[in-house]
This record gives sequence, structure tokens and C-alpha cells, in this order.
Amino acid sequence: MTTALPLLVTMGDAAGIGPEIIVRAFERGELADAVVIGDAAVLRRAGAPMTARLESPRDLGAVPPGCLPVLEPPGLPSGLAALPWGRIDARAGAAAARCIEEAVRRVRTGAAAAIVTAPIHKEALAAAGVPFAGHTEMLQHLARGADGVPPVRMMLANEELRVVLVTIHVALRRAIELVTFDAVLETLHIAHRAAGGFVDAAPRIAVAGLNPHAGEGGLFGDEELRIIGPAIEAAAAEGIDVRGPFAPDTVFMRARRGEFDLVVAMTHDHGLIPVKYLGVERGVNVTLGLPFVRTSPDHGTAYDIAGQGRADPASLLAAFAMARRLAAPPARG
Amino acid sequence: MTTALPLLVTMGDAAGIGPEIIVRAFERGELADAVVIGDAAVLRRAGAPMTARLESPRDLGAVPPGCLPVLEPPGLPSGLAALPWGRIDARAGAAAARCIEEAVRRVRTGAAAAIVTAPIHKEALAAAGVPFAGHTEMLQHLARGADGVPPVRMMLANEELRVVLVTIHVALRRAIELVTFDAVLETLHIAHRAAGGFVDAAPRIAVAGLNPHAGEGGLFGDEELRIIGPAIEAAAAEGIDVRGPFAPDTVFMRARRGEFDLVVAMTHDHGLIPVKYLGVERGVNVTLGLPFVRTSPDHGTAYDIAGQGRADPASLLAAFAMARRLAAPPARG
Repeated sequence: MTTALPLLVTMGDAAGIGPEIIVRAFERGELADAVVIGDAAVLRRAGAPMTARLESPRDLGAVPPGCLPVLEPPGLPSGLAALPWGRIDARAGAAAARCIEEAVRRVRTGAAAAIVTAPIHKEALAAAGVPFAGHTEMLQHLARGADGVPPVRMMLANEELRVVLVTIHVALRRAIELVTFDAVLETLHIAHRAAGGFVDAAPRIAVAGLNPHAGEGGLFGDEELRIIGPAIEAAAAEGIDVRGPFAPDTVFMRARRGEFDLVVAMTHDHGLIPVKYLGVERGVNVTLGLPFVRTSPDHGTAYDIAGQGRADPASLLAAFAMARRLAAPPARG
Repeated sequence: MTTALPLLVTMGDAAGIGPEIIVRAFERGELADAVVIGDAAVLRRAGAPMTARLESPRDLGAVPPGCLPVLEPPGLPSGLAALPWGRIDARAGAAAARCIEEAVRRVRTGAAAAIVTAPIHKEALAAAGVPFAGHTEMLQHLARGADGVPPVRMMLANEELRVVLVTIHVALRRAIELVTFDAVLETLHIAHRAAGGFVDAAPRIAVAGLNPHAGEGGLFGDEELRIIGPAIEAAAAEGIDVRGPFAPDTVFMRARRGEFDLVVAMTHDHGLIPVKYLGVERGVNVTLGLPFVRTSPDHGTAYDIAGQGRADPASLLAAFAMARRLAAPPARG
């Protein structure tokens, strides 16, 4: 499936595996609809035979076959292609941030259909003085509007399971505190809106409980009775096809078998353990709630193997497939 | 693999699927080394063509082919075979408890190699006035010695993953409080001792953290630094091959790929989500820490389908396979 507008892929951290997985995917002929936002010399170092410098994503059609289309944002640090592989460097962090800013600017002007982001390194970002912990926070900031920053949720998906998380990178103790009626209901709204992008009919959402056996009627915790159940009822009253809370230990298996299109999980690990269990190669990370489509591979910069030609582009390719699907939702029957 | 001594299988709740999955497994020729502790009439109602009443498990060799060997404990309520299928009944609860008591008595005298328990119903047990929440608590009580009740842990296993749980049926909030240095170290001791039963070399144990990314160096919770890490170090200092704490979202995938023999998980759902993700048919529940081997299928009484001939004995058969293995550990090379 391709879309009329090109996809943008940011090169990520120049010292990590981002540039080489982009080049490898391009060489396989899988990125015909994509423009790289990055540094041309970095991409050549990562194996690109030739690069074509674009002024706009709209010029993609004019790029000769075999040339990797690259749009270089203004203000990139110099000497990026001379950075040692696999080391934290402020210049790599600054460049990664510039590429993300440029990609958001371009997609918001309507020149591109979606953004796929290659991995960045949080410490390189911090070394460059970028005031965001990672992609999500930065994208949220760049997408701010009259109402402030949009609420977002992380979705992890592979070929057989899609999970949206109520809480992510906090201590489990704190995550329990963050499971509120508003947080669960907002997650259901975001998940329901996004789910139109990947299912043909009305999306069937399941909600996993927080406690063993979803609390067993209050015996093992009351968050299901006090918080999660009422939020599900409120969403259902709005017409959303949502059920639960279900026992966390069996709801993902049920979704995998096709009973649900998407599972909302309360904690990072309840949701990510099943998505990653069969292998991370095909996992895709999607930020839901942004005013544009953003996906990314479900792995990091892999500094330990960067520059060695060993990095696998499978998750990046899955991220492209998901971005195409979300950017061109299936027609409703 | 068979053992010299027979295995015992308790019939479980007479109104559930226990009796019929035992009969079905027997009909498939898979229980040649087993004696049922139960009510002969209940087993005939569940489909057994003929039953042979034994006085002792040691008489198994004298049972004619095609006869299901049954040892009836004294004191079983009458009329069990007339109970309606799929309803909670105090008589079924009392009978299930009697069978468990008898099985423990027999295995502790050395007349049997292990106990496999068919599912019981907690409410039937309670209706009969049995003061235990379930199998585990009852077995622990029956195994008490001079030191009181032995500490036990639940292991869930299938063909590709084995998980031992530090905490089980409590609210997640409470589970976090129960993750102490002593509880983690005791789990490692129990897991290490039991692992000798199913791996040939020294068992390689992985420990999953409690928090996302195993706390990311204290950023997302400090239980890994304060509690789990020190308990792992203490166990390693005793010579146990144990590593971690690892990020919960990837350690189970790594164990599935063969990097570890067993994963210790802090919470019920961290551990059970991956074991159950691929389907519950082959799951086996093992109580570690008892002075005898006890396994059970990883499902309940399934009252909704009891007596209809639809119940699948796959998990019971897997429980038998595990019991045989644990009762006759592999020889060390």
C-alpha cells in the first residue's frame, strides 16, 4: 500500500544503527515512498551508494533510481560523518533533534503523510541540551496548539497484537497512582480514534485489569471496581466497543486469537511483555494522539553493533508498513 | 519416561471437568502409571468403562487392562455421582478435600512418586467448611513438619517457558510490599532446588525486575537496587547461577529463546502473561517447596462445559509429563 504523499524518516542518532537500517531498507526497494530527513554524509557512511538532496518532500518523484532521497535540515552540526560509532556525542544528539523538528514542520505543512523515526539516544540528546527525555515528549511539544500539548499514548504493535498503555516510564508504585478514571477514559478515547486507522469495522477494545484476576471482585485490589470499570462504562456509554476489565494474564492471549482488535493495559510491562514475547523484530511503536502519524521501530540505537553492517531493518520496515496504514486508513464498508 | 512408583491423580471437584479429563487421558493410554484417588461411581459417570478398586497404589500392577485404577479414600460423601454438573456443592468440596488428604498421606508414606491434582472449586471447598483457599494452602498445611508449614512458590510452565512467582494472589499494590529481600532470596532457593528436576546441567535462572526497564538505574523505582539486586547477589554468592534483574518486557522472550532455564517474576501477571500468551492448553502449575512433587493443569473446573464430553485433557497430560520428570530427575552429566 502506498500513499500519495511521501513518508518522512528521521535518521536518528548518527552514531547508532539508525542510518544503516534506513540504507538497508532502501536497498531492498522498500522505501520508494520515503524521504530521509538527515545528513547526507552520515547516510553515505552508513552505506548509501548515492544520495539526492531535496528541497522539499514533494520533489521525491524527480529523484533518479538508486539515489537515496535526503532532505538536510538547516543548522545540522558539521563533521557528523566522522563521529565514532557507538559513542554518546552531543553533536549526534543535536542533529537528531534538528531532524525531528524539521520532519514535524514538513508534515504539519501537509508536504508529507507521516513520520517514521529511527532511534535516538537519550543521553546524546541530553548532552546537546535538548530539554526532552525522548521522542514522545519532543513530538508532543512540537505538536502543541492553542490547548497546550496534546495528550498522547504509546501503542506497541506487531502482526498479531496491538497494545495501548495508560502509563509508561514510571515506577510501578507510581503507575498504580496514575491509573485514574480520567487517564483510563482518555486512553480509551485516544485508542478508539486511532483504531480506525487499522481495522475495517468498529474497533473492538479490551481493557486489561491492574490486579491479578482483574481483582477477583475486589478480593485482590479494588482499582477495577473504583476506577477501571467505571471508565469502561463511560466509554461504552459514548458508543465505544470496549469490554473489561479482564484478567491481565489471559486477555492478551484472547486478543491474539482475534477476539479483540486492541488491548488497553494499565502498566508498561503488562502491555509490553506479550508484544515482545515472540521477538522484537517486528514490533512497532506508535504515538497516538498527535495531529500527525508517527511510528518507530521498537528498538534503540544498538551502539554495540552500530557501523558493523549487522543491524536488522525488520522493525523499521514494520514501522513503515504501520505508518502507511495509519496515513491511509482502510475504507469503511 | 515412567517411574517405578505410580503417580496419584486426585479427581478434583465431582461436578467439574476433573473426572472426565482423567478418564479421557486414561482412554488415550497415557495414564498407565497412575492411580486415581477418587469416587469410582463419579469416574464411571464421567465415562470410565470399568474401574478397579485398589487398597494401595502398590497394587497398580495387578489391575486388568482397560480398567481405571481407583483408590477410594475413606469418608467420601455418598451420592456424589448424582450431583448436577456445573454447580457448587458442599459434598463435591468435601470429597475433593478428602482425596487430596489421602493422596498426600499415600505419597508421604512412599507408596507413590508424585501427585497430580485435577481442578477443585474454591467455593465448593468453602461450602464444605474446608479452611483453605485452595490446593496450595491445603497442601502446605498437610506437609507441615517440625518447622511449621514449608514455604512454597508457584511455578507455571509450558513447553518453552518456566516461571516461578515471588507473589501471587494479592492486589498489585500489596504485591509490591511483599517483594522483600527475604522473599526474593527464598524464591531463588526454592527455584534452584526444584530446577534440578527439569534441567540436565546447573539451572540458569533469570530474575525479572519489578519496574519498567528494571528501574532504569533507579529512575523508575528503586526496588531493583534496594531489594532484588542484593537478593540476587546473595544467591549468586551461594553458587546459584542467577542473573538480573532484567527488564520485565524482554526477559521472558530471552528465556523462550533458550538463554535461561527459568525466570523468577515478582508479580502474578508479569509471570503469567507470557506463559499463557500462546494458549493455556499446555500450561502446567507446579507447587515448589513441598516435600513431594505436585503438579496440576493450568485451568479450573470449567463448570460451563462439565459433563458434555468437550473438556480437553491436554493440560492434565502436560501436568503428568511434568510430574514424571520432577519425580525422576535427569541424571547429571
